Amino acid sequence: MGHGVVGSGVAEILLTHKQKLFASVGEEIYVKKVLDLREFPDSPIADRFTKNFEDIIHDLEIRVVVEVMGGLHPAYEFVSRCLKAGKSVVTSNKELVAAYGADLLELARQENVNFLFEASVGGGIPIIRPMNQCLVANIVNEVAGILNGTTNFILTKMIEDGMQFEDALRLAQDLGFAERNPAADIEGHDACRKICILASLAFGKHIYPQSVHTEGITKITLEDVKYAEKFGYVIKLIGRVKKLPNGKIDIVTAPMLVPFKSQLANIDNEFNGIMVRGDCTGDVVFYGRGAGKLPTASAVVADVVDCISHLKQRRFLYWADGDGSNIINVNDSVFAMYVRVKGKDAVSKAQALFGDIQHISMPGNSRAAFTTGEMTYGVFIEKINKLSADNVEVLSTIRIGDL
Amino acid sequence: MGHGVVGSGVAEILLTHKQKLFASVGEEIYVKKVLDLREFPDSPIADRFTKNFEDIIHDLEIRVVVEVMGGLHPAYEFVSRCLKAGKSVVTSNKELVAAYGADLLELARQENVNFLFEASVGGGIPIIRPMNQCLVANIVNEVAGILNGTTNFILTKMIEDGMQFEDALRLAQDLGFAERNPAADIEGHDACRKICILASLAFGKHIYPQSVHTEGITKITLEDVKYAEKFGYVIKLIGRVKKLPNGKIDIVTAPMLVPFKSQLANIDNEFNGIMVRGDCTGDVVFYGRGAGKLPTASAVVADVVDCISHLKQRRFLYWADGDGSNIINVNDSVFAMYVRVKGKDAVSKAQALFGDIQHISMPGNSRAAFTTGEMTYGVFIEKINKLSADNVEVLSTIRIGDL
Repeated sequence: MGHGVVGSGVAEILLTHKQKLFASVGEEIYVKKVLDLREFPDSPIADRFTKNFEDIIHDLEIRVVVEVMGGLHPAYEFVSRCLKAGKSVVTSNKELVAAYGADLLELARQENVNFLFEASVGGGIPIIRPMNQCLVANIVNEVAGILNGTTNFILTKMIEDGMQFEDALRLAQDLGFAERNPAADIEGHDACRKICILASLAFGKHIYPQSVHTEGITKITLEDVKYAEKFGYVIKLIGRVKKLPNGKIDIVTAPMLVPFKSQLANIDNEFNGIMVRGDCTGDVVFYGRGAGKLPTASAVVADVVDCISHLKQRRFLYWADGDGSNIINVNDSVFAMYVRVKGKDAVSKAQALFGDIQHISMPGNSRAAFTTGEMTYGVFIEKINKLSADNVEVLSTIRIGDL
Repeated sequence: MGHGVVGSGVAEILLTHKQKLFASVGEEIYVKKVLDLREFPDSPIADRFTKNFEDIIHDLEIRVVVEVMGGLHPAYEFVSRCLKAGKSVVTSNKELVAAYGADLLELARQENVNFLFEASVGGGIPIIRPMNQCLVANIVNEVAGILNGTTNFILTKMIEDGMQFEDALRLAQDLGFAERNPAADIEGHDACRKICILASLAFGKHIYPQSVHTEGITKITLEDVKYAEKFGYVIKLIGRVKKLPNGKIDIVTAPMLVPFKSQLANIDNEFNGIMVRGDCTGDVVFYGRGAGKLPTASAVVADVVDCISHLKQRRFLYWADGDGSNIINVNDSVFAMYVRVKGKDAVSKAQALFGDIQHISMPGNSRAAFTTGEMTYGVFIEKINKLSADNVEVLSTIRIGDL
């Protein structure tokens, strides 16, 4: 369902990798129907297109359905009906999984079919299956990642080439890494959906994007990038979820200062990287292309293969619904912070408020940046408000990631 | 079978993660017997130890056997007999898989049971299952990795702390990262076994370690480390296998100069990292702890879970036997090279022989290092011999990795 970028990639891989897939599956994967409202007369499977969903739902030969339409509706209705009809479903649609994952997994459980979505996070990077299967003997305590290629590309251009945010965004658009309406990427919503999916998987209860404090990268300036470098960090947009000792979940999507030595610091351009902290394995990091036609399509096809190998046996991929009551308030989340300020005696005023800080002052003017020790975000905001009240202009505040 | 470091870790995880594993498997994983010649009176499962393999093979309730004894014999005989008796086997024994993988996979196929070995490469890093399942819709063209934690720890200490090889080795031994007899690690044999396993998996035919040109790190000096840095590289012990356009396999285990910007350059200390180049995904990198009790044991337990989930259905993990006829001679392998030399006019003599080189000369003496363009290793050795004949002492030669 859907013959856009990813959908046409799926069709292409099924054709070009026919032999390899046959060897792995033991039978041919045949595309019976393609649902799309547009016409594709030049497609090698032009004869199998339909504009009517009913052609798919009523075809008993169709055992696995691929949903790569994107968006919530009618994707949700179509996927639900497929699962209820006893068909396994594979999707790359992170919006759908983040909004309806628990609902659809429960449907799949009831019907004893599979609902798989490896491609919804990290594109071609294996992450859902490794977390679910390879790390099954671990209690995962934390997941953190660079989950959006567009914003990582923009930040890399700012860091490496000294480009301004707007210029880097325009370049990303020209190169096809960013959409004409880039809001979902640069406002952090895309990264938020992905960390919600990983958090739901890691901790067994659905976490909805609206429960997660989300900041994008639109306020990041070149000054911040340069100060960060002097302090020994790079700025990355991070989705991070942590299980606290009291069992509560601390989850946030926001730009963070990442130490040079972190494995996430060296993930540049349009690449993604995801760190999983297991109690037995320690840190495991997965790196690769988080988007793009063939990387994403190859992850979809791998899920299709898994469905076919488990037609009579459901994969143990499941999480229950959640009401967000186990998520702590953003103000209770603990971070060390980076702050950029302007104003007379800004540093000494900050020292008076925050105690032990590290700071860099620019010579010849009243601009400076400093980093604080760890405190709750609520306490931090209180102190920042006092700093503002004391005639210090607070130009930016960014979390420091313990990554 | 085997209650050493990894074996006791497996028992520990099955105990401490009982609840989580029950939720994933749907039944309890019960340790029926432990084979070890030693006594473990303080173990919580002390009552289940046996010194007699026959107790395991004849116990019809035992459906999955874990082999973590290490070494080739009697591990091979025991594993074969278990498979023939219809029991699935999980192992962390890379020596066994590198020497008998095709043989044991064929046995498993005949008996319709599973033979899994996620823990044999990369310890706790998911790599076998992701390559086999998540990347199933890719044609893998190249696999390269830092596959041995001991040597990576030693090289990191040389690079970051300026330690001599011998001192770094002693430190690794003191910290328990290197064994008293470190030959298998520092001579490259351990890394070679692992790249052989990954190559067999990627290309479908068993590649035996004795077919693979293998160099260790014992000849790497601090001078090489420093020159490498000036050229923009770090020295890493790399296992690398590549499929050439003519279908032949180019495989080597050797120290290589890795460019700073490579994802493999930032994998330090005892950590491992593995890069897989798929035709659809592009580069995917897996990073984590390549050894250690709990990381390795958690990978073993994940395989046990997989066996239990597929008791009546074999995983499609298989490669055929191979005779090495598809592997090119080391002399036909193409690399750019790094060379360190000593002697009057060494650089100009090298320029005359190698053409366009980049070089760094130390002031005040006749020592220098240079890097060449790409050529076959055979041609390189010819030219190096001419350089030696021309009164230039060749102190070291290291491959430059295109990673």
